[in-house]
Formats: sequence, C-alpha cells, structure tokens
Amino acid sequence: MKNIPLLLMGCGGVGRQLLQHIVSCRSLHAKQGVQLRVVGICDSKALIVTSDVFMMELDDTVLAEVCRIKLNGSSLLTLSNNGQCQVFSNAEAMQKVIDIAGLLGKSTGLAFVDCSASSETIGVLSRVVDLGCCVVLANKKPLSSSMVDYDKLVSYTRRIRYESTVGAGLPVIASLNRMLSSGDPIHRIIGSLSGTLGYVMSEVEDGKPFSEVVKAAKSLGYTEPDPRDDLSGMDVARKALILARLLGGCMNLDSINIESLYPKEMGPDVMPVEDFLLNGLPLHDKDIQERVKMASSKGKVLRYVCVIEDSSSFHTVATFPSFFRCEVGIQELPRNSPLGRLRGSDNVLEIYSRCYNEQPLVIQGAGAGNDTTAAGVLADILDIQDLFP
Amino acid sequence: MKNIPLLLMGCGGVGRQLLQHIVSCRSLHAKQGVQLRVVGICDSKALIVTSDVFMMELDDTVLAEVCRIKLNGSSLLTLSNNGQCQVFSNAEAMQKVIDIAGLLGKSTGLAFVDCSASSETIGVLSRVVDLGCCVVLANKKPLSSSMVDYDKLVSYTRRIRYESTVGAGLPVIASLNRMLSSGDPIHRIIGSLSGTLGYVMSEVEDGKPFSEVVKAAKSLGYTEPDPRDDLSGMDVARKALILARLLGGCMNLDSINIESLYPKEMGPDVMPVEDFLLNGLPLHDKDIQERVKMASSKGKVLRYVCVIEDSSSFHTVATFPSFFRCEVGIQELPRNSPLGRLRGSDNVLEIYSRCYNEQPLVIQGAGAGNDTTAAGVLADILDIQDLFP
Repeated sequence: MKNIPLLLMGCGGVGRQLLQHIVSCRSLHAKQGVQLRVVGICDSKALIVTSDVFMMELDDTVLAEVCRIKLNGSSLLTLSNNGQCQVFSNAEAMQKVIDIAGLLGKSTGLAFVDCSASSETIGVLSRVVDLGCCVVLANKKPLSSSMVDYDKLVSYTRRIRYESTVGAGLPVIASLNRMLSSGDPIHRIIGSLSGTLGYVMSEVEDGKPFSEVVKAAKSLGYTEPDPRDDLSGMDVARKALILARLLGGCMNLDSINIESLYPKEMGPDVMPVEDFLLNGLPLHDKDIQERVKMASSKGKVLRYVCVIEDSSSFHTVATFPSFFRCEVGIQELPRNSPLGRLRGSDNVLEIYSRCYNEQPLVIQGAGAGNDTTAAGVLADILDIQDLFP
Repeated sequence: MKNIPLLLMGCGGVGRQLLQHIVSCRSLHAKQGVQLRVVGICDSKALIVTSDVFMMELDDTVLAEVCRIKLNGSSLLTLSNNGQCQVFSNAEAMQKVIDIAGLLGKSTGLAFVDCSASSETIGVLSRVVDLGCCVVLANKKPLSSSMVDYDKLVSYTRRIRYESTVGAGLPVIASLNRMLSSGDPIHRIIGSLSGTLGYVMSEVEDGKPFSEVVKAAKSLGYTEPDPRDDLSGMDVARKALILARLLGGCMNLDSINIESLYPKEMGPDVMPVEDFLLNGLPLHDKDIQERVKMASSKGKVLRYVCVIEDSSSFHTVATFPSFFRCEVGIQELPRNSPLGRLRGSDNVLEIYSRCYNEQPLVIQGAGAGNDTTAAGVLADILDIQDLFP
C-alpha cells in the first residue's frame, strides 16, 4: 500500500470539501493501493499536527471535527492538544511546517496542498520544494506572484500540480501539459474562465440591461459578495497568467492588459457596494447595450475572455524571439463558435495548436464550486503518487 | 537525466509518426530531464534491436531509415544486421522481445508501445506486464479483446496508458481517470467517436442523400478504403468498450448493441465495394432521410454515438448491483446540445458525473490522424516517466 503524507493549508470551502472527499474515498483509494495520510492542517490562525508525522495521521474523527469547526466559522486554534494531535499558534506554525517538510520530504515524501486564497503561503511553499516536497495548489496566488516565486515553485516540474487554479476541476492544465510534453506547440488559448462573467455576457446578449443581469447574478449566488471582485477581471487575469506562464511566457500580472467592467471612480474604495449596484452600474447599461448591438450586426457576440497567443510557436526555429500576447477583457466572437455558443456559467476553452489547428481542442464544463475544485485537487494528489516510495 | 527505454510494436502510420515526434522532441525532452531511448522496433515481419539494450539505442539515423522503409511500404526485414542493430525474423522475434522485457523490465524499466492495429500483440503484452514493463497503447485490440486479457493488462493500473485508443490525442482517458481517482462517479458518457460518421450524420442533416455523403466522405479521404469498415460501427464499438471497461463495466464486444449502417446482405463478403457504393447504399437514402425528418420535427438531429450508462454510480451504496448500458448507433439528440451542434469530423464527448451533473464536461476536437494519435502516445510515455529510475 502506497502511503502519501499530506499537509493541508487552508480549510475553508475547498479545503474542507477536500477533507470530506479524502474520507469518502478511503475504500476507493485502498482498492487502488493508495492511502492518503493527513499529517497536518493549518488555517490562518493555527496549525494542527499528528503527534508522530512518520507513522500516524489526523484520523477521520479529527478531520470531521476540523470540518465542523470550519463550517461554523471558527479557527483551528479552538482545538486543544491531546495524545493524537498538537496545536500550534500562527507564530510557531511556519517553523513547525518547515521542520516537518525537512523530516518527511526526502524520506517518505510529503505533499503540501494549498487550498487557501492567501499569498502568505508562498514563503513556505518556496522553501519546501527544495526539501523534496510535492506541491498541489488550488490557490492561484503562489503561481501569479513574481516570476522568481513562479520559477522556484515549478523548478521540479514533476513535483507540482495545479489543475484547480484554472477552471476548477476541468482538465485544463493536465491537457495542456500533455500537449506540451508531446511537442505539440500551442499557438493560442481563448477562454471564458469566469462563470459569473460568462453568465453576465450571455444574458446581456438577450437585451437585458447589464446592471440588472449583474444584480440577478448576485442574488443567484454567482458573484462574490461585492460583484466588483468579479467585474474587475483580476480573477480571470490570474488564471490567464498561470496559463501564459505554462506556455513559457515570462510575464507578470501587471503586464496583462485587463479590461475592468467598472471605472476606477466606482471602485470599492470610493463607493459602497449598494451604491455601486443601485447608482453606479446602471450608468454602464447603454454602453454595453450598444456594444452588444454592434457585435450582433456583424454576426458576433460579446464574451469576457482571456486570450493568450504565442506567435513563436508558429515558427520551427526555437531561437526566434518569443512574442506573447496575454489580454483579458470583452471580445467580439463569432456567434457560431464554442465560446459564442456558450450560455450560462460554464467555463469554455478553445486551444489551438499544430494538432488542433483549424478546429480547436475544446474543453467545457462547470469551472467553479467547492466540490469540483476539491475533486481537481484530489486528482492531482493521486497523479503524483508514483513519486512516493 | 531520466532514461526511458522503449520497444515499439507497429511502425505504420502512427508508429512512424511517433518515431518522428521522438526525434524532433529530443531537445524539448532533454530540457525536461528526460531521454527516450528506442531499443527495438518491430513490424509484422521482423524485429530490429540495438546491440546493447542496457546502454545503447537505435539512433536517429536508424529511426530515419525505418521511417523511410515503412513509408515505401517495405518491411523491417529489408534492414541488415550491423554493429549497431540486429534483425530478427518473425519466428524469433517473440522470444527475443520477452528476453528483453525480462532483462530491462525490473532493472531500468521498459515501455512497450503498441502502435499496431493487430490482435497478435496481446500475447506479448500480457506476458511483459508481469515482467515489470509499462504498456502504452494506440492499438485498440488488446483492450477490446476478452475480459481476461483486459484484466491482465490493467492489473498494474499505474503502468498502462491508452489515451490514443479513444479520440486519438484528445484528453479523454486522462480526464476520465482523473475523475474516477477523485471519487467523482461517472453516470453517463455519450460521444461521437468516429470522425467519418460525425461528418456523415451532420451532412445528411442538410438534406443530402446518405449515399452521396458517404461517397463524398470517401473521396475526401475521411473513410477507410472500404467505407463499410466505418459504417459497421465496429470501430466505435471498440472505443465504447474501452470506455465502458474503464468505468468498471465487465463486458465484451458481443454484449454491445451495435447498429450497423448497412444490412448483412450488403456485407464485404457478399458485395464488392464499388457495387455497394453504386447500388447498395442508395437503397438506404430514403430511410435515413425519413429518420432525419422525424428527428427534425422534434427539434432533434441524428448522431451516430456511443452511450455508456452506469446506473450504479447514482447510488452511494457500493454494493448495489451495477447496471451497465453500452450501445452504439444512431440516436436522436437535441439540436442545441454539444453533440447536436457538432458539424464536420470532430469527435465530441459529453461526460455526466456528480460534479458535471446538469451540464456535462465536454471534450471536443480532432479525434483522428497520425499526428495527433502519435502525440497522444508520446504524452502517455512522458506521463509514466516517474516509474523509471
């Protein structure tokens, strides 16, 4: 039986769901000859660790207790030390985590699973990769920070997986990696990577006012509590950056042209969210409506997409200077294309390469939700099993 | 540098393309720290082997020579023994291959890559899995033969890959494996897995006569030399069987309900191909035309698809008796669905699971061609690299 020790960072929605998946898949994984052993879990306040990281684990009772605590909005700090598990406060946690990585990384192996939404995990992750640990990410921040951090994290390419950073559990990164490893150069990716903006853009197509559609999306629970977190395009830009870097683009978030769907003077620092929804957003309705009409007159529709183009991949000479384009914003797209036909909140990617030249490879499906995001993380963990003794 | 020894069976279209990909990806793979070392190649007449399977390889000059010979329709038998490479006739080949598997399987590791279209490789493959070898298949026959052979081949699940048996290089098997390993139960797969039949069904939708469309497909090079090889549905059925077995279905080819698009009395044993195209096929035009109209009156279109359903995956109790449905034939599908919108020769799969429940996971793209098939094989080879020392 192959034993995979895990240390989970972040046990909010996705992390909690992951723990539940791990427990419910015990017998399935046993049949596959794999046992997932959770040796530690941390949130922003505390770290809990099994008393013997070599032999023991946080058992299913502890995992259930963690899920209960987090569902109630409490912190792991509320857990108490006992024979089975030790609790460390934030101040001690970082050093303890590095210690565990040092102990397990090169002996039994250890997978760091980052289901947080924090940029504070980057420091730990950069250190543990050199200690022989594997890294599995749902958190976009570590890969959309500086190129130095990025290069560090991917320096051992076989030891990192991050499917759930783009399109949740949709097999996007896995598919791109397959294409890249087989020497099929990717020329272009165009994708709708925000379920919220996908829904909004397909609804305004029917003539509904932009502001009404955003409000409806909010009441359906499709948006963040402040919809400007979606409308800013920053979340899409982080995903676009991860894809661009995977294709070899050396770029940062600030080198991406991002179209925000609200102007700076309606930003969260200037305007409360209620005011924005009631008075700010409707000022945009006419503009969006005109753009929809203009596109429609050309047989096109508006979609909020990321576009990543690597012109160098068209050339066979490897030394040709690489030209990368990475943009995030509204584009006019043919009504009769996979992206043009998109309705509702699915994510869609069109990938063009040598093998998928005239017709793209298309991957479409739900690109958000704790269940599918956690499933993507779990698939990643199983995918690195051959690295464990 | 990780060294992956390969033994290639079958060097017709796909195998030849694979050799070319291996050569052109040398520097790419070196950057990834991987070296693919071809130690032997066989076709139906002969086997060529490097003189030292532990240390040497058939170098790029030999690989180019093999490609040249096969492109000319000759056999590897025309190659001659020399310091670098030994040639064995068919009679000696099988034992020699087993010997090499015994030498390398458990020491350096060895990947058997089957790019043939023969059922004669099954015997060798079943033997080498027990010798510690990995298996990578583009050949559908070994996995669509008896359940005994199937169970043997997949007995070490981490050591077998077969992406290119279904939808060529499309990431179908990889995606399904990810879903299965993360405990996301797959309820239903419906897919158009024949580029030829996909093209034919979307063309008859426009009112063109079935027989004319088949003839056009043949002249475009979309069909086999005898289009009945496509119209029989047997190729789709083999792919469907591979998917059904991946989902846990214990079934054989003869337990699949297959709709052939020509009657037995027009079979290859009864009617020459020209006669079939000229006199046989047109007898079907009216029937197909009526089915198209009937479907259209319900807002539906006809597609030639495989349907795989696992009703047991709806239940949470693992002991509930598994009910499998696997059918291959024409179905009426909503015009406004991924399969209904399909035009041309792309493959499309809709996958329904717990995570992809109301809206399916959709994978679409070119599902045939030597380039993409070989790229899928190469991606599979790179995917098992962690099993090599």
